[in-house]
Amino acid sequence: MPHIPLPENLPGISSGFAFRPETAAPMRELAHVLLYTSGRNTDLSSRDRELIAAFVSSRNDCTFCKMSHGAAATHLNGGDRSLLNDVWTDFQTADISQKLKALLAIAAAVQIDGKKVTPEMVKIARDAGASDLEIHDTVLIAAAFCMYNRYVDGLATLQPQEEGSYLQMGARLAEQGYVPPK
Amino acid sequence: MPHIPLPENLPGISSGFAFRPETAAPMRELAHVLLYTSGRNTDLSSRDRELIAAFVSSRNDCTFCKMSHGAAATHLNGGDRSLLNDVWTDFQTADISQKLKALLAIAAAVQIDGKKVTPEMVKIARDAGASDLEIHDTVLIAAAFCMYNRYVDGLATLQPQEEGSYLQMGARLAEQGYVPPK
Repeated sequence: MPHIPLPENLPGISSGFAFRPETAAPMRELAHVLLYTSGRNTDLSSRDRELIAAFVSSRNDCTFCKMSHGAAATHLNGGDRSLLNDVWTDFQTADISQKLKALLAIAAAVQIDGKKVTPEMVKIARDAGASDLEIHDTVLIAAAFCMYNRYVDGLATLQPQEEGSYLQMGARLAEQGYVPPK
Repeated sequence: MPHIPLPENLPGISSGFAFRPETAAPMRELAHVLLYTSGRNTDLSSRDRELIAAFVSSRNDCTFCKMSHGAAATHLNGGDRSLLNDVWTDFQTADISQKLKALLAIAAAVQIDGKKVTPEMVKIARDAGASDLEIHDTVLIAAAFCMYNRYVDGLATLQPQEEGSYLQMGARLAEQGYVPPK
């Protein structure tokens, strides 16, 4: 049961957003820029950005964020769920680029503490072709999910456990992004 | 030295904001709502909100955020720095309300993991007079600073060590908030 009376029948972060629209607006906008619009305007695709979000959420053990962003990543991966599972299990052996592996290593460091990111990690990413913007966005996606995950769990929001509950949501986030249509 | 070429002569988060205005806008807006405008519209004052921010930043060992929000809290406390020090050292014995102590205990749990917040912690806060909105905002301030702290540290931004460097900044944040004047 949620720690405060949140609007019913809304899962995860949606219930916090409905409770407090003033903070929901910038939180939605930040996700929209980092995961949706920038995945169309830069070389780091929305699929890869969603994988980073699902990966960090998995490390933070946040069911709602892990499953919803995992579903978005899988949708953007043509429905193939095995890649997501490989990234969760051991990203270094997953079928992804060296650049994305290097960026996931940076995200893994940020999830623990920003100070764990080393110049060597950044050099490996840059040598694998990562731009300054991609390194920046990786740090910020990982940092932002340390917020979203704690928000979802800290309010004890309703989090469906079955993966099937997240398929539609993931497809919608992947297709339409995070800012509600005006 | 920062991990990516950030605009020079800007300390801490300001350099990340200048590098990426698209993500800076919602990040500034979120801080503005949580720390500035809501501190005028609700019973949880901006002084108390800045204390929560400085407390979480101290637990995350993020010098820039700890010092800048600490300076804002001190400014809003009539310049008396001893309260901030007491909150950093042992908030349970600091000269603050039972309500704020209970909210800081919730923030301390969120800083580690949102799932560490217990119904008992929430009941203690509510019994001390905390509203649902104040509990919500405490969870989100703590969660948001787990993002800001990791962003500042994960980019290895320039962080002055001397407390004096933060006095003017803290006064400006306390007086004018987090969204630049239009």
